[in-house]
Amino acid sequence: MRIYNAPLQEMQFLLTEVFDAPSFWRDNESLSHIDMDTVSMVLEELAKFTKNVLLPLNRSGDEEGVKFTHDAQGYGQVTTPTGFKQAYQQYMEAGWIGLGATSEYGGQGFPKMVSMFQEEMMFSANQAFALYPNLALGAGLCLLESASEELKNIYLEKIYSGEWAGTMCLTEAHAGTDLGLIKTKAVPNKEGSYDITGSKIFITAGDHDLTENIIHLVLAKTPGAPAGSKGTSLFIVPKYLVEKDDKGDYQSGERNAASVGSVEHKMGVKGSATCVLNFDKAKGWMVGEENTGLASMFIIMNYERLAIGVQGISVTELAYQNAVAYANDRLQSRSDSGIKNPDKPADALIHHADVRRMLLNAKSHAEVSRCFAMYVAKQLDIAKYSNDKQIVETANNRVALLTPITKAFLSDKGFEAAVDCQQVFGGHGYIREWGMEQIVRDARIAQIYEGANGIQALDLLGRKVARDSGAMLFDFLAEIRGYIANMQAEHGIEQATLNAANDIECLTKTLLMNINERKDEVNGCAVNYLHAVGYLCFAYMYAMIVETCQGKDEVFYANKLKLADYFIDHILPRMQSHIAMAQAGSESMMAFDLAYFDHM
Amino acid sequence: MRIYNAPLQEMQFLLTEVFDAPSFWRDNESLSHIDMDTVSMVLEELAKFTKNVLLPLNRSGDEEGVKFTHDAQGYGQVTTPTGFKQAYQQYMEAGWIGLGATSEYGGQGFPKMVSMFQEEMMFSANQAFALYPNLALGAGLCLLESASEELKNIYLEKIYSGEWAGTMCLTEAHAGTDLGLIKTKAVPNKEGSYDITGSKIFITAGDHDLTENIIHLVLAKTPGAPAGSKGTSLFIVPKYLVEKDDKGDYQSGERNAASVGSVEHKMGVKGSATCVLNFDKAKGWMVGEENTGLASMFIIMNYERLAIGVQGISVTELAYQNAVAYANDRLQSRSDSGIKNPDKPADALIHHADVRRMLLNAKSHAEVSRCFAMYVAKQLDIAKYSNDKQIVETANNRVALLTPITKAFLSDKGFEAAVDCQQVFGGHGYIREWGMEQIVRDARIAQIYEGANGIQALDLLGRKVARDSGAMLFDFLAEIRGYIANMQAEHGIEQATLNAANDIECLTKTLLMNINERKDEVNGCAVNYLHAVGYLCFAYMYAMIVETCQGKDEVFYANKLKLADYFIDHILPRMQSHIAMAQAGSESMMAFDLAYFDHM
Repeated sequence: MRIYNAPLQEMQFLLTEVFDAPSFWRDNESLSHIDMDTVSMVLEELAKFTKNVLLPLNRSGDEEGVKFTHDAQGYGQVTTPTGFKQAYQQYMEAGWIGLGATSEYGGQGFPKMVSMFQEEMMFSANQAFALYPNLALGAGLCLLESASEELKNIYLEKIYSGEWAGTMCLTEAHAGTDLGLIKTKAVPNKEGSYDITGSKIFITAGDHDLTENIIHLVLAKTPGAPAGSKGTSLFIVPKYLVEKDDKGDYQSGERNAASVGSVEHKMGVKGSATCVLNFDKAKGWMVGEENTGLASMFIIMNYERLAIGVQGISVTELAYQNAVAYANDRLQSRSDSGIKNPDKPADALIHHADVRRMLLNAKSHAEVSRCFAMYVAKQLDIAKYSNDKQIVETANNRVALLTPITKAFLSDKGFEAAVDCQQVFGGHGYIREWGMEQIVRDARIAQIYEGANGIQALDLLGRKVARDSGAMLFDFLAEIRGYIANMQAEHGIEQATLNAANDIECLTKTLLMNINERKDEVNGCAVNYLHAVGYLCFAYMYAMIVETCQGKDEVFYANKLKLADYFIDHILPRMQSHIAMAQAGSESMMAFDLAYFDHM
Repeated sequence: MRIYNAPLQEMQFLLTEVFDAPSFWRDNESLSHIDMDTVSMVLEELAKFTKNVLLPLNRSGDEEGVKFTHDAQGYGQVTTPTGFKQAYQQYMEAGWIGLGATSEYGGQGFPKMVSMFQEEMMFSANQAFALYPNLALGAGLCLLESASEELKNIYLEKIYSGEWAGTMCLTEAHAGTDLGLIKTKAVPNKEGSYDITGSKIFITAGDHDLTENIIHLVLAKTPGAPAGSKGTSLFIVPKYLVEKDDKGDYQSGERNAASVGSVEHKMGVKGSATCVLNFDKAKGWMVGEENTGLASMFIIMNYERLAIGVQGISVTELAYQNAVAYANDRLQSRSDSGIKNPDKPADALIHHADVRRMLLNAKSHAEVSRCFAMYVAKQLDIAKYSNDKQIVETANNRVALLTPITKAFLSDKGFEAAVDCQQVFGGHGYIREWGMEQIVRDARIAQIYEGANGIQALDLLGRKVARDSGAMLFDFLAEIRGYIANMQAEHGIEQATLNAANDIECLTKTLLMNINERKDEVNGCAVNYLHAVGYLCFAYMYAMIVETCQGKDEVFYANKLKLADYFIDHILPRMQSHIAMAQAGSESMMAFDLAYFDHM
């Protein structure tokens, strides 16, 4: 039986003590209706829902997977695993779907600092299920930012209420990372809309039985559009065309020529439908200006990528909770420091230092990643809700710089934690019954989708650091140094963080020099650079945690300080090897002739 | 379609150039019948068999899995995936099973330096299939080393011919790592044999339809046996009791009370049956002396654990071959260093430095691991075949020291390489059709079974290093330094290896001091210590490779030198973080009260 209890105390700690969210909400007019009592109540209710409704469907959803059949008209259709539909109905009726959506279109207007915890709980309890509403919200946000008033009025309330779902249709068989290569066509028709023709793959939640309509956002090329990424436009393509009824309400009507061709068989998240979608002169309406499709997508990318980083926290928390329970229960061998359970034939795993090592890696990752994600979420909220131009600009810069780290580093560490926690189970970790292997399989996708982690690293080093000669990065370093300088606490983390910041400054300057000489340098160094900066971010977060906790009496705070010690001893040292590998540059990887890689 | 071509050139290179196996065979009487022509022929035939017969059953075996049903008498029975039985028949009839087995009992008497390549190819082409003959050989070796002449005469020829299979029945539901806790009973009966009663879990190849009989080796406790690991005995328990026929040949007869109760549903290696085996007063015959069961097992452990290390090579090679093929074929984005395929809309993945980084990590791991496994295999062969007592002792010490590294480090790196190569495929890596996700799922088990990797690390630091105050380790360091001092080649690897050796000496001395003060230190530092020493071993192997290749003209050798450069730049630096984490010790992981780990 899988365990999951939402870590509400941790969430409260971050909101109220580390980031003082209530003051931030009070100080920003458009958030002044948010208060901690309401937030606590919301989080508690979500904790119950995720534990009682979504968690029990986690393994059954994996075992059953989605079903692909054809309906009476011959259209492909996806059936979600048993129980998903009822759970969705319950989730929708409780009004959870639009929690973080703008109140203008029926959402509840909670800030990202709150809705990120909704995402965390959902993804912990049932990653496959959580993807359905998550994708719909992504589509909603994209419409909110880029669509005309008319389109927003038709679609947004239905999406935020959960009546209709949504998708993002970008990837094609030959065009994944490089979306400039897409071939899907959008030809203007007589009715003033477009005929969309083409095929999209890897469409998460591309079809399902949870909602009466699904609103696809489709990237396509208009006739004569420029080649490459500057010639793509975005279209809204509903599964069922929308009509106004007698009362003036929008309803799903006639079937559009958009349908699911097949579903993928995957390593994990098997309860989530990953679809091939075929558009055969399907009717579509342009979102935003022509040839700005990719730009529209990128507006929402920061939110989406934060959500994937949050998935890294979710799997870590889930894996940790299950592994620590097993480590307490399972008796195996005697502790090296003396018998701990004299009445039993062996001591519990938790008494073995190596088991603690694996658990503490996961525990530390869960806490520091959550803290980091909240730091980024706060920047998103500042950028969205603050009226101070300078503050908004800084926040936007932080978001730009840290989003690729959030997505890639947190998902990489999440997979690592899942594997570590599986290892705690020994042979039982490999058996499906125990559920740990599913956590590993599910966790793996977060490193791949929404821009593979190597692409995130290129975004960081190439776009965010190299393009402005490191200005955004150096500004972030200044913030870190300023924070450390003002700390009251005395702990090893201040010096460790300063050292890490100095190392990153030095590494960045070296790379900025090398990049001019070696064109492959960004590509060859990016992943190690991202990991090195990731560890600096973690150190900074631990500095905040230490500053918050030192001097407080309760054991809760004392343990946070101990976990910071553990981080300095057993996690932060990894930063050095990434620095060394990034500094080594791309030369030895590009030294081989192409023939070396010829496959037999 | 999955690709696998046995890396015969690499194997030849190691045998003839790096380790000069032919001279070694010539100089040792019991190996003087082995020559390189025969070995090459054998390897080529195995390459064909693994590619043409086993590889095509790899994915179908995973999709189909093993079937568990009951026979007419109500006994549980396992059916292997379609095609396994025919492939086994072919493998057996070709005489491959006993390739590395002693000729005294019908084997072909090839040394480990050759049979390790048989293992490598088998596990690359079809890990699930390979486990069946692999377990049988393990049981055979155990009998060879510990059983009476009578038992050997009855069983060994049948096992080495492949007519009968075998298993190792150790683990029980509550006793995995700690085999002293087993409860299976062996009670002497009137017939001079024992009645075996109990239940074993996680029994690889515990039942199947490949052979007419299966010979279980079962760990059990006799009445009044001492508690713990010193009170376990080993028994031979055939699935069908063996009778002598009219011609004096041994045949499978009556059914023994040993049967499969269920099979596990696992993350991977789904074509391999992992069984619960129930013994209900099954007849068994003691192997070796009473209460020496674990010791008998440990005799063969070094061979078994080398085989698991080899699995790490196998998955890496398989993952690399498929990923490099994909990287050549898949067009995505333009190279940072200028357009490479002007006629195409994008350049192949192979032109992106980050893709090369992932591929070269795998390529380097495949080559250096193979070299290291051969180094250990040569020590096994020296220990077995040499007549010089001093040389044998040194070889045995090397085997003892390096076996846990071979098992754990190579399987950890194998999993890492599988994940890296999966990442090269982007979203396609997550889809079952492409096969990469199966490689990851299959690779994961090698870190767990045959002693989880944390246990290997404890074996290294606790038993092999701490117990003799580092004597074996320091002797190995002296060998490395001696080798470097005598090198003709000039390359960065000499200094890098010496530095690594110095670092390990320093780390070992620090740990040896700390261990006396802190009882949890071995347990807390072992995994990082193992990884640090692992990287030193890899550096030493690269020194050998460089010494072999420098000054030779062909591009094959030049590329080996380049890969050594890559290793120094992008792999060896990881050693430093493991050293730092090992040096940090166990204090911060043991600083938490037990209550910290209470689960909700």
